[in-house]
Amino acid sequence: VARFTADSVVLVTGASGFLGRHLLERLLAEPCRIHAVNRRGAGPAGRRVFWHAAELRDAAAAAKLVAEIRPSHLLHAAWIATPGRFWSAPENLDWLEAALALARAFGEAGGRSFLGLGSCAEYDWRAPSFIEDDTPIRPATLYGKAKAALWAAVEAYAARYDFCAAWGRIFLPYGPGDSPRRLIPMVIEQLRRREPVLLTAATQERDFIFAPDAADLLVRLLAAHIPGAFNIATGRGTSVRCAVEYLADRMEGRSRLEFGAKTTLVEEPERLVGDTAKVKQLLGWTAPTTLEAGLDQMLAPAGVD
Amino acid sequence: VARFTADSVVLVTGASGFLGRHLLERLLAEPCRIHAVNRRGAGPAGRRVFWHAAELRDAAAAAKLVAEIRPSHLLHAAWIATPGRFWSAPENLDWLEAALALARAFGEAGGRSFLGLGSCAEYDWRAPSFIEDDTPIRPATLYGKAKAALWAAVEAYAARYDFCAAWGRIFLPYGPGDSPRRLIPMVIEQLRRREPVLLTAATQERDFIFAPDAADLLVRLLAAHIPGAFNIATGRGTSVRCAVEYLADRMEGRSRLEFGAKTTLVEEPERLVGDTAKVKQLLGWTAPTTLEAGLDQMLAPAGVD
Repeated sequence: VARFTADSVVLVTGASGFLGRHLLERLLAEPCRIHAVNRRGAGPAGRRVFWHAAELRDAAAAAKLVAEIRPSHLLHAAWIATPGRFWSAPENLDWLEAALALARAFGEAGGRSFLGLGSCAEYDWRAPSFIEDDTPIRPATLYGKAKAALWAAVEAYAARYDFCAAWGRIFLPYGPGDSPRRLIPMVIEQLRRREPVLLTAATQERDFIFAPDAADLLVRLLAAHIPGAFNIATGRGTSVRCAVEYLADRMEGRSRLEFGAKTTLVEEPERLVGDTAKVKQLLGWTAPTTLEAGLDQMLAPAGVD
Repeated sequence: VARFTADSVVLVTGASGFLGRHLLERLLAEPCRIHAVNRRGAGPAGRRVFWHAAELRDAAAAAKLVAEIRPSHLLHAAWIATPGRFWSAPENLDWLEAALALARAFGEAGGRSFLGLGSCAEYDWRAPSFIEDDTPIRPATLYGKAKAALWAAVEAYAARYDFCAAWGRIFLPYGPGDSPRRLIPMVIEQLRRREPVLLTAATQERDFIFAPDAADLLVRLLAAHIPGAFNIATGRGTSVRCAVEYLADRMEGRSRLEFGAKTTLVEEPERLVGDTAKVKQLLGWTAPTTLEAGLDQMLAPAGVD
């Protein structure tokens, strides 16, 4: 398994997003040079991070940036992520096209290792399990279709330019810095305000992964230089109900939970839990943080914003 | 099953290519308006065909063309097809990017039915059979990877713009107008010149489909407005050796065949025969022309150029 050296030049896109911030934090533990891009050209985790301003959906701007930085490693996390909207937003196609231009520029600049952020939404959600190289890719949503198309395209660019292409299919990340409009921060905030918490039946079982753990696995995969698709998951399923009840119990708000008061935006499957055998076998990795420990960190004052 | 009407506006790309010419010929039997594009802006099957000149790898030019024609149906056949070279030519990525721009322009212009030309090279060649919605997509070549990526992307564009997207995975087309550098025309030419015919062991079993039959199926699929991937195949396997021996026997040249004298460019599978149950079930279609009848047509003087 390969590692980063002082000569490694890592470029992170979407670096001020939810996962992007955790990726930068985790990269600071590595000896590589770290470049980060967002529209402003500034962001957190200062010190060792070189920030760049670029609109990546402008193919020429993306290519120029990559040609300047000449990254050996590209961690491509930029995508539309507006809670609720992202499932069917037309911008999914802008980001698909932007990523193709980026993959080409990376290949032309002599890049060696590409890691893109995919999603469990690429899988056929009717499958009984989600195994990287076995479960059919049959995305139900525009978001899933665009992500699946990008991975297929990245495999083509990798063959053309002879770089290593890996793909992380993220399950349900949560943790510090998550959007206040996503489930767990929203529930915490409503419990804090002692408001009623309106929920779906919440019986669906999900693979919640603590964002710093997801970032740890992604950074290890990028360094390892192993091609292929990988679930970014814990392998453990928990019902949304169970996760929410844990929070409510910690905040003495169980009576404010109103299960069944809401309907879901997207027809989602009952069980969405990633198989983790591949990552365990290749990297010896298992998610270190239990759901309870992760939720506790979100309840700690410093972890909320 | 839908049909073309006098209001249907069909745009054919790659219209002066091998399959493109057969597609135009077959479309002349339909009541639709026919637009065709190549770099010259002129080609065969005149009369009812409106020719346009455009370099489709220029995304802006492609978008302009589509905006002008406003096709209801797009039959996208343009791709790099240089015999031998196409498997790993970098141009595969240019055509992938070009097709994305075209799919977007088609969606924006209100297009309703898109049919792209895919390939049996998208499948995992180690699979025992090739069934559209069952066999894993695991292309071994850059050509196959780019085609598979395009189909995944087209499914995303179709979801975004609400058009019907279909995909024809072509097996081994042969027939009048085929490149003289491809197997069957080359063997016929060498036999005609009474030269030795150098071949591989030629034991590999292939699904040879007569190009006019392939065009017939593709045009029916485009009209039918049924989304999904479809094998363009006969379902019948014949060894290359058997096909070549048939030609040699018809031309009294069996003694000039030298099996085992050549090696293959690409690691190809022993058996590559398309499952045809889906097309048979949905359209009641089976390939009308036997291999013998198709080869006989290629041996007839008019069929050679």
